[in-house]
Amino acid sequence: MSLNPIDLLDYAGVAVFAASGALAASRKQLDIIGFLFLASVTAIGGGTFRDVILNLPVFWVGNSSYVLICAVVAVLVFFSAHRVESRWKLLLWLDAIGLAAFSVMGAAKGLAITGSPVVSVVTGVLTATFGGILRDLLAGEPSVLLRPEIYVTAALAGATLFTLGDLAGLPPLASGLAGFAAAFLVRGGALKFG
Amino acid sequence: MSLNPIDLLDYAGVAVFAASGALAASRKQLDIIGFLFLASVTAIGGGTFRDVILNLPVFWVGNSSYVLICAVVAVLVFFSAHRVESRWKLLLWLDAIGLAAFSVMGAAKGLAITGSPVVSVVTGVLTATFGGILRDLLAGEPSVLLRPEIYVTAALAGATLFTLGDLAGLPPLASGLAGFAAAFLVRGGALKFG
Amino acid sequence: MSLNPIDLLDYAGVAVFAASGALAASRKQLDIIGFLFLASVTAIGGGTFRDVILNLPVFWVGNSSYVLICAVVAVLVFFSAHRVESRWKLLLWLDAIGLAAFSVMGAAKGLAITGSPVVSVVTGVLTATFGGILRDLLAGEPSVLLRPEIYVTAALAGATLFTLGDLAGLPPLASGLAGFAAAFLVRGGALKFG
Repeated sequence: MSLNPIDLLDYAGVAVFAASGALAASRKQLDIIGFLFLASVTAIGGGTFRDVILNLPVFWVGNSSYVLICAVVAVLVFFSAHRVESRWKLLLWLDAIGLAAFSVMGAAKGLAITGSPVVSVVTGVLTATFGGILRDLLAGEPSVLLRPEIYVTAALAGATLFTLGDLAGLPPLASGLAGFAAAFLVRGGALKFG
Repeated sequence: MSLNPIDLLDYAGVAVFAASGALAASRKQLDIIGFLFLASVTAIGGGTFRDVILNLPVFWVGNSSYVLICAVVAVLVFFSAHRVESRWKLLLWLDAIGLAAFSVMGAAKGLAITGSPVVSVVTGVLTATFGGILRDLLAGEPSVLLRPEIYVTAALAGATLFTLGDLAGLPPLASGLAGFAAAFLVRGGALKFG
Repeated sequence: MSLNPIDLLDYAGVAVFAASGALAASRKQLDIIGFLFLASVTAIGGGTFRDVILNLPVFWVGNSSYVLICAVVAVLVFFSAHRVESRWKLLLWLDAIGLAAFSVMGAAKGLAITGSPVVSVVTGVLTATFGGILRDLLAGEPSVLLRPEIYVTAALAGATLFTLGDLAGLPPLASGLAGFAAAFLVRGGALKFG
């Protein structure tokens, strides 16, 4: 199996979102099962939603690697999270990386299937935000839901830039990186200076 | 493109639900992105759920008009909502119109696909109530969730009357209007006299 | 129509989850429509989620019996719940039975469609937990969401044992009973001694 850059972005997004879910479990002092559950829901929630909306086979149903990544990440975080000084801060930064990766992945899949830039932007935003919304809802964290603006703005920036880049004929790697950078700068900037 | 009455009902339902979502964003003093997000989720949430359950292509994926309607409505509300005396009251009345329109649309699609009156009623209720539930959940409004009875009763009345009218051989316009009127009277009556 | 044991488990799971949803409605003093709504959402939520993820026709769309079971159960509970000494305790025990039944049903369908043990375990857990999560979310009950560990552990035990039994070549009835028993013992044990 050879990995192209977009696949790598996909696996990386799943891994960091899984870590953010596991950190939420750590903050709630759940046991290992709670870690596995929150890590998986956060990491595969957004992409599941995207695939269901696009009427595609759900990505992790056809490829067990994703679920296994969630399990490994959940176990690693379970045994190391107590050493992290601020789990909340780390959670937010991992969440920002995942958000950026998924805004591109969601837009890329939406564009590939429908060819519509509008749908591409919407699936990008939904894919990027859904996992984090689920995590906060299930873990009882208020953050994302109470301040949707920056979260959604970042996803919108990433999905829009990727879509525009692709329409402009850029290669997937370039438009993907541009989208990723845009989303991460918006979200990361708000974390650092907000 | 020529519009039949049922399509018009569909667009109208999307527009009023989008307005109700945008008003919820206004009440929470969100920025323009928050308006776009809440308007879209509220307006296309119910129909998305319906199409997923019926294993149909999701309606807005194949037709960008719906998302564009949400965007236009969100922007309009963003620049005018502060002039509205009671945004909460307006939100509830728009929600009642959307609920009535979607109870008929949901039932019509469910009946067309499955031929089963039971499924028709259930998809009518789910389509009509899901968007408003999402809006209130995401905006932290308690209304619909804490008093599901009248909300669901109105959707049930609309979906059931439409389904019965259709089974009785009425033309779609007649059974659609009957269902719309029934749902709106139940919900509007509760708003006015409840 | 002849019923095989797995179908029976399915109908039984729907009935007990419907009863748990109706009891939640009773605790919230909702009217009959509230009973119907919460009973249905709780009972068919998990299986709907499972079928959507597996890209299958949603089970209750093709077979009205499920919705009718929910309606009958909701009406029965509506007229009898006030006689139950502790509706909360009964709700939890019915929930435990439904959880055990759905962990097996979800895993069985996931395994049949994909052949992957990993997917089988995940769909088992999601099917078993989703209905109860929806019920508690909509009824404003904190239980399941605040203490996901035992709930998810029980579902995981049921789905894993069923999957292992099936891989080991046991007949469906044997692996199904083993999974059901495992899930019920974990959840019931926590209720009795927790």
